[in-house]
Amino acid sequence: MNKKFLVILADGFEEIEAVTVIDVLRRAGVEVFVAGLIDNKVKGSRQITVLADGLLAQVNSDFDGLVLPGGGQGALRLAESDKVNALIKGMFAKNKIIAAICAAPAIVLSPLGILAGKKATCFPGMEEKFNQDVKFVAKAVVIDGNIITSRAPGTAMEFALAIVEEISGFSMAQKVRQAVLQ
Amino acid sequence: MNKKFLVILADGFEEIEAVTVIDVLRRAGVEVFVAGLIDNKVKGSRQITVLADGLLAQVNSDFDGLVLPGGGQGALRLAESDKVNALIKGMFAKNKIIAAICAAPAIVLSPLGILAGKKATCFPGMEEKFNQDVKFVAKAVVIDGNIITSRAPGTAMEFALAIVEEISGFSMAQKVRQAVLQ
Repeated sequence: MNKKFLVILADGFEEIEAVTVIDVLRRAGVEVFVAGLIDNKVKGSRQITVLADGLLAQVNSDFDGLVLPGGGQGALRLAESDKVNALIKGMFAKNKIIAAICAAPAIVLSPLGILAGKKATCFPGMEEKFNQDVKFVAKAVVIDGNIITSRAPGTAMEFALAIVEEISGFSMAQKVRQAVLQ
Repeated sequence: MNKKFLVILADGFEEIEAVTVIDVLRRAGVEVFVAGLIDNKVKGSRQITVLADGLLAQVNSDFDGLVLPGGGQGALRLAESDKVNALIKGMFAKNKIIAAICAAPAIVLSPLGILAGKKATCFPGMEEKFNQDVKFVAKAVVIDGNIITSRAPGTAMEFALAIVEEISGFSMAQKVRQAVLQ
């Protein structure tokens, strides 16, 4: 059965980070549901509006993993949402994959305590917002257990392919890598 | 004065290619108008719907350059549009920048004859559709005069930064490159 992943978009999300992950996961046969935090129309940090597949309010926790794009304002809005925080904590407790890039590891994941004792990365400089118990690593993609973190639009493709490799294995990641010329 | 660029989206466009160019050009201070070929809602090849800024029918040729994303079906729809073909030929005649990636160089630009005698690249294998007078080069980004071509989602960031460098110079491209960690 296909894996099911949730991507949550809030106004101010970073468009390259969000779209690269959705596109690459779908290329790998992952069923991706794109949920808008408040509205179906979600406007990114560079004024690109994407239509979500539905609203976060409609979503239950029946996913194999979750991806949070960055964009400072988008990440702040995600962090302020009780529903987002409850979903992350619930999925973390069930050992699902939690992936976050750019501002999202520091702004959304770290305050929930789920990075405690783990290696993680984020947008350069935002590691100052990590809780002290997070082991910051300045790499493009960092995987520690079921947590996958990354840094910026320029690392989004590598981040997306790392998620595919975790879900579907090396050969599927390699197949997508070749198809997109990465 | 800011440079003005046009990006045309048709159903079936490749999302990473389109969004990466729009995002990166806006980061560089370029005014980007995203025009939907038929409708404001344009659905990409991986089912991501983007809201265009307006319809192509509203657009005049008052731009400094034009970018065509790939996606096989999207490129075919662009190639079938008289308005798109007229815009490209008009802007080419005025020495504006014409940039195309993936399927678009072979499917849209080559049939118009504007690649004649020029070096260009495209999605691997699609070079078979190039007119015989096109000099195919298997590089991520190829620049020949005012024509910039590229290959796939994995080369979209390099393509976008090459366009920025052509428009705004090395130091602006370098600034964006550093901001996105490319």
